[in-house]
Amino acid sequence: MRALRFDGRQPVYVDDAPAPTPSEGEAVIRPLRMGICATDLEICRGYMGFTGTLGHEFVGVVEQVIGEDRRKLTGRRVVGGINAVCRQCDMCRAGLSTHCRHRTVLGIQGRDGCFAERFTLPAANLVPVPDSIDDDTASFAEPLAAALQAKAQLHIEGEPYITVLGDGRLGLLTAQVMAQLNASVRVVGKHAAKLEHCEKWGIKHRLLDDVGLRQDQDVVVDCTGSASGMTTALGMIRPRGKIVLKTTISPHDPASVNHIENLARIVVNEIEVIGSRCGSIPEAVDSLARAEVDVLSLISRRMRLSEGVQALKVAAEPHVMKVLLDL
Amino acid sequence: MRALRFDGRQPVYVDDAPAPTPSEGEAVIRPLRMGICATDLEICRGYMGFTGTLGHEFVGVVEQVIGEDRRKLTGRRVVGGINAVCRQCDMCRAGLSTHCRHRTVLGIQGRDGCFAERFTLPAANLVPVPDSIDDDTASFAEPLAAALQAKAQLHIEGEPYITVLGDGRLGLLTAQVMAQLNASVRVVGKHAAKLEHCEKWGIKHRLLDDVGLRQDQDVVVDCTGSASGMTTALGMIRPRGKIVLKTTISPHDPASVNHIENLARIVVNEIEVIGSRCGSIPEAVDSLARAEVDVLSLISRRMRLSEGVQALKVAAEPHVMKVLLDL
Repeated sequence: MRALRFDGRQPVYVDDAPAPTPSEGEAVIRPLRMGICATDLEICRGYMGFTGTLGHEFVGVVEQVIGEDRRKLTGRRVVGGINAVCRQCDMCRAGLSTHCRHRTVLGIQGRDGCFAERFTLPAANLVPVPDSIDDDTASFAEPLAAALQAKAQLHIEGEPYITVLGDGRLGLLTAQVMAQLNASVRVVGKHAAKLEHCEKWGIKHRLLDDVGLRQDQDVVVDCTGSASGMTTALGMIRPRGKIVLKTTISPHDPASVNHIENLARIVVNEIEVIGSRCGSIPEAVDSLARAEVDVLSLISRRMRLSEGVQALKVAAEPHVMKVLLDL
Repeated sequence: MRALRFDGRQPVYVDDAPAPTPSEGEAVIRPLRMGICATDLEICRGYMGFTGTLGHEFVGVVEQVIGEDRRKLTGRRVVGGINAVCRQCDMCRAGLSTHCRHRTVLGIQGRDGCFAERFTLPAANLVPVPDSIDDDTASFAEPLAAALQAKAQLHIEGEPYITVLGDGRLGLLTAQVMAQLNASVRVVGKHAAKLEHCEKWGIKHRLLDDVGLRQDQDVVVDCTGSASGMTTALGMIRPRGKIVLKTTISPHDPASVNHIENLARIVVNEIEVIGSRCGSIPEAVDSLARAEVDVLSLISRRMRLSEGVQALKVAAEPHVMKVLLDL
């Protein structure tokens, strides 16, 4: 089987990956479209200590469900939650199954990912995609869910000032989600070409160098993926404001950051820092069906799975947004 | 005037400090009892870039109020809030005057502190102390208010597991405050002799080395004053739990901490980190009047202001809790 894998040292494209061996309750899925995420790039630099098939953003067709196919998923087009959970531990029982103590995570932790001819996920994770949503759009369900999670973790009162920090893939998705709130939203980033997307969405945007650090924002959502993002966010957030930490920071981040000073500022200004990870896939599908966000504008390149090693390099280039793969 | 000051390089005891020059609306206060706080020790190592008279924990007698003494404070025994605020800025108008954009802070920021024969604060900051509260007890109003603030910033549901990390002055005050909640509270620290105080209060306690990092606590209140406290807290807190950051961390903290990994854990486990600083002095006085917390057990040493330089050294010793000064 063809697959794009990380061997512990570098990404490799192989044609002899073993076919997946689904367990009871799992579905075998053939991907139609796959998206490359910053987390994939970090994994290729050692993040999470993962080795195996990469990838966790997909839309695909269910080929088989092991055991009873109660939801009649076979043959349907689906997207899916990436956390395969035990349903037994304290977190699962508390309704926090994305934090399952024994979870595996598609292409991230203990489970081969979706950059392959076939992969598996628990059938319970899968969400059918309505015909009105095309494959390209559907492949954004997972990152959109992550963006929606930032909104779900905030309690908005009044009409707050919200800054989305970072003009990458996740930043621009998050900005579109935040713009649905009763809030004054702006995106602050380093790349004029990326920020320009905000024009067509009617979202305010500024270059980082042009923005004063005035500690006047009620909420800052850090989508920079950089350790220096927290320092910038602390310069922008008002006392008692909320910083949502949305992105994986590279352990290889070269930024020179005074973390002790940052901790002191969190205390002195009584800032709330909220970590934010995976969100609801069904809600993301609903949002895509209602065309609430423009994801197609974020597609920079389409490449083949066989070009996967090159595709990872392309996705790391500063001006590239989403790179989609197909088989 | 006698005073204990920080000259930018070291603490010095002087007898020629200028007498305070109170402004309209300010009170002149003669301290009866003063407490040394970890923040005083940090300031003597350069924290906040402060120079001037040290000290912000006190009970004292009002000698004079400049302008109309509407609250009849002259001659009364008082404690007081340490933030002198403008009442004009966005924070003051929003009811967040402890975060006043133009504040000065007693002995910490732009305002001489209370380790002197006389000092000033706005009369509006002062809270009369009932006769039932003795001087020693009253001198704990400010740190107790800070401990109460941790409780005020939490929304407790069910009967959560709360760990107070750190067995110092603030840790043991915070533990007593948390023990008033419907919660299972334990203190985790490094000093058996300090932890022993918990026995008489009926609060569970453990040595750090004896505690597993099982990510099973609903709330961790970090009172360690150490950069490594966050790493320990992240090892104890459950996914979606809350870490209250209560203490000033020394910029000279020698701990080797992987801050990037800590940020990643905040994101992956969706932790909420809540900075916490000054609290309500009136509530602290009420709590002392109701004898809800035992502060007298925390007094390790009593010294004279003239011994202040030595007193700061004593307060920094590992087994010493509160050092009180008088004139």
